[in-house]
Amino acid sequence: MDFRPILYVMGMLLCLLAIGMAVPMLVDMYYEHDDWRVFFFCICICTFFGGTLILSNAGCTEESLNIKQAFVLTAMGWGVMSLFGALPLWHSGINLTFADAVFEATSAVTTTGSTVIVGLDNAPPGILLWRSILQAFGGVGFIVMALTILPFLKVGGMQLFQTESSDKSDKALPRIRQNAMAIGYIYLFLVAWCTMTYWFCGMSGFDAINHAMTTISTAGLSTHDASFAYFNNHLLEWSATFFMILGALPFVLFIRMGKGEWKAVFYNSQVRAFLRFLAIVILLMTFWLMISHDRSFGDSLRAVSFNVVSIVTTTGYMSEDYSLWGPFALVAFFALTFVGGCTGSTGGGTKIMRFQIMSSIFKRQMFRLVHPHGVFPITYEGRRVSEDVLFSVIVYVIALFMSIAVFSLLLGLLGVDLITSITGAAASIMNVGPGLGNLIGPAGNFAGLPEAAKWILSFGMLMGRLELLTLLVLFSPYLWRR
Amino acid sequence: MDFRPILYVMGMLLCLLAIGMAVPMLVDMYYEHDDWRVFFFCICICTFFGGTLILSNAGCTEESLNIKQAFVLTAMGWGVMSLFGALPLWHSGINLTFADAVFEATSAVTTTGSTVIVGLDNAPPGILLWRSILQAFGGVGFIVMALTILPFLKVGGMQLFQTESSDKSDKALPRIRQNAMAIGYIYLFLVAWCTMTYWFCGMSGFDAINHAMTTISTAGLSTHDASFAYFNNHLLEWSATFFMILGALPFVLFIRMGKGEWKAVFYNSQVRAFLRFLAIVILLMTFWLMISHDRSFGDSLRAVSFNVVSIVTTTGYMSEDYSLWGPFALVAFFALTFVGGCTGSTGGGTKIMRFQIMSSIFKRQMFRLVHPHGVFPITYEGRRVSEDVLFSVIVYVIALFMSIAVFSLLLGLLGVDLITSITGAAASIMNVGPGLGNLIGPAGNFAGLPEAAKWILSFGMLMGRLELLTLLVLFSPYLWRR
Repeated sequence: MDFRPILYVMGMLLCLLAIGMAVPMLVDMYYEHDDWRVFFFCICICTFFGGTLILSNAGCTEESLNIKQAFVLTAMGWGVMSLFGALPLWHSGINLTFADAVFEATSAVTTTGSTVIVGLDNAPPGILLWRSILQAFGGVGFIVMALTILPFLKVGGMQLFQTESSDKSDKALPRIRQNAMAIGYIYLFLVAWCTMTYWFCGMSGFDAINHAMTTISTAGLSTHDASFAYFNNHLLEWSATFFMILGALPFVLFIRMGKGEWKAVFYNSQVRAFLRFLAIVILLMTFWLMISHDRSFGDSLRAVSFNVVSIVTTTGYMSEDYSLWGPFALVAFFALTFVGGCTGSTGGGTKIMRFQIMSSIFKRQMFRLVHPHGVFPITYEGRRVSEDVLFSVIVYVIALFMSIAVFSLLLGLLGVDLITSITGAAASIMNVGPGLGNLIGPAGNFAGLPEAAKWILSFGMLMGRLELLTLLVLFSPYLWRR
Repeated sequence: MDFRPILYVMGMLLCLLAIGMAVPMLVDMYYEHDDWRVFFFCICICTFFGGTLILSNAGCTEESLNIKQAFVLTAMGWGVMSLFGALPLWHSGINLTFADAVFEATSAVTTTGSTVIVGLDNAPPGILLWRSILQAFGGVGFIVMALTILPFLKVGGMQLFQTESSDKSDKALPRIRQNAMAIGYIYLFLVAWCTMTYWFCGMSGFDAINHAMTTISTAGLSTHDASFAYFNNHLLEWSATFFMILGALPFVLFIRMGKGEWKAVFYNSQVRAFLRFLAIVILLMTFWLMISHDRSFGDSLRAVSFNVVSIVTTTGYMSEDYSLWGPFALVAFFALTFVGGCTGSTGGGTKIMRFQIMSSIFKRQMFRLVHPHGVFPITYEGRRVSEDVLFSVIVYVIALFMSIAVFSLLLGLLGVDLITSITGAAASIMNVGPGLGNLIGPAGNFAGLPEAAKWILSFGMLMGRLELLTLLVLFSPYLWRR
């Protein structure tokens, strides 16, 4: 395998990271915080390695990546961003071990939103901003990947979203450049809109821009230990609920809306299924909370909407500790961990499209049980779905449950308790953020876990962000055989 | 739909149940226990309803059941056995509510092995024997169903086991009679062998025959609250380990061995995968227990073998409270809940065949990711597997996880705690028996659950025993549409 084009792209990513680091450096300089030296040091490292990789591999034809190279590049890209993104966290004044820093950076880049930092309220501004920027990078990166690379790699049924041009071409990279610009503009617009709204609703400018970046990327890191509960502001919670939903919608629809197809988003079957699901779950849980906890309708609706949307979109903010709502809430929030947003959004999770496909497979089998010789074609958005897509989706689900089992067992081996092991593995692989239990529950923090557990969960978050198969295929002998 | 042949078969099942009830009646008479009147009363009820159903539907052509009738018959058969099997338990001197009695009978008939009876050691002999007989009935019934009806209904990939004659015929019932006799003889032989062994190892005659019936059916009800821990007898534990494994092997192989094909069982890929899996898991956990709990190799090996085999074969005995072994054991035993024995055995669970198929699907997808145009046929026991079988297996798995989610949510709504909800739902649907947590853990008892939870879990056990789809299809509009 020719690694040169892969290393060339890694070099470009490192330079991009260095540019990103300049922002928190300037902010720390403005606030006269010593951490600006750390960022400066990290910028030097990233530029050095990035520059070396670019120069030493310049002239290679990165436009002609084959499928094996594309797998390696994708996985390495996220790994490199997590590792080098961890540098400022490791060396800053907040005293993180290397495992902590890598966990925090991976959690940021994969838009998971779990944190190991205690005392965010007094953390240096540069570090807080850096976490948010990493999440914004991760969000844009994931959408670009979902729209361009995953359909090409045929991972997890994403070949459903192959455009006509991509059908014909065997090359991945040229399309990335085309789409990345449009995605970038829309992303910037959404973050700006969200910042203005948060600021208008009462956040400070700094909090507003940080939370806007972590909302649109459905990522969930906050600048306060208490997350959104810190603000105790109903208007702010409703705004965040709205923007989290926006972040979990397919970005390609926003591109089409930008081109004048205003109704695109309302006629999309995935969006409709997603909103219908949210509406049903929120209504049912609101009535349950009203009755079982004697709260008013408005109060229940707000609390349920915010926290359900936060988990389903895999953001991971919390406005109150729902794990105190009792057993039903625990089971429900654990189940919601697996849902996720729409494909082609920043959201993690299994994603609505895969549930639609599985539901079609289920219906077809029910039909076939009664009519063994009947024909029941499976369609999606009006187009016939090939068996290859069905198996892609299914293998994603098989890989998901096997991964959760393996990761839970590994955490159990380290002495982590049952609930923390299972919900921690699920919340990481699904890129949700908070798990359940005293340690990593919505009001908790991952700092108390053993070092080894942080490495395991970092790997889990990376795996989840790579839609499992893109990472697992690296361990397959087929990839490395000639 | 013509219900007459279905009702005719229900009548026959009720008469069979009445014959079964005669045994505990005679035993109670022998021990001069008043419960014999209860059994006599129940025999009268079963014979009355059974006789009425047979006579009123006599002359119908039950040999020509169509596929829709076969689904209704199968589901109703298990429901009727559970409901009427509950009658003696409800009316006996041990003071069970109707929900308790139905739970206990369903747990027995479905060979799950969860109990709500506290104080088994002093329970009347007739009742203890009746639970064991129900489990033996359930075991034989399930094997007959797995070998004859399920391949015909094409549920959960069981069409893999269609024989040539069944391929050609559209009728289910004639084959049942052919096979049922052979299965019955082998079953009797195994129970007798197991009884002799247990008795030889030190059990009383009564305990030996009860435990033999609940071992071969991989069912797990015991005549003592402490299950096998009561005997504290190493030889007995090893014998039980051996017979539980026998009960989880495909019975069709025993039939072939009976016909002189001695090596059939050793050349079967499912049996090999099952034994290999058991060996690996037992060895790994033995070393883990030795190191982490400072126990000797022999002691660890015995404890791990017995309890792992008990859960994997879905029997549900316990020789010591493994939930005290720490977090790793909890996660591991929860994961093992989903495995199950071989198809065509009395074991529940997902079953080895389905894991083999899923593993093949996974491997094929890994191959296709790298070689999009490559061909990778999936075979099983040397024969090409059709896409229909693959989807059958997959839909079983989808239905499994959806069912566990729904049942856990329902239990959560009743205020049952998180661990009890999830592990209870899983242990019931997989027909394993014990869950985890203080209430329903290996040393626990289902008596403490709310009444409604017992109904829900009874339904779950029934659903698991019907391989999910056979029950779910009853709620499908396709079945009832003309």
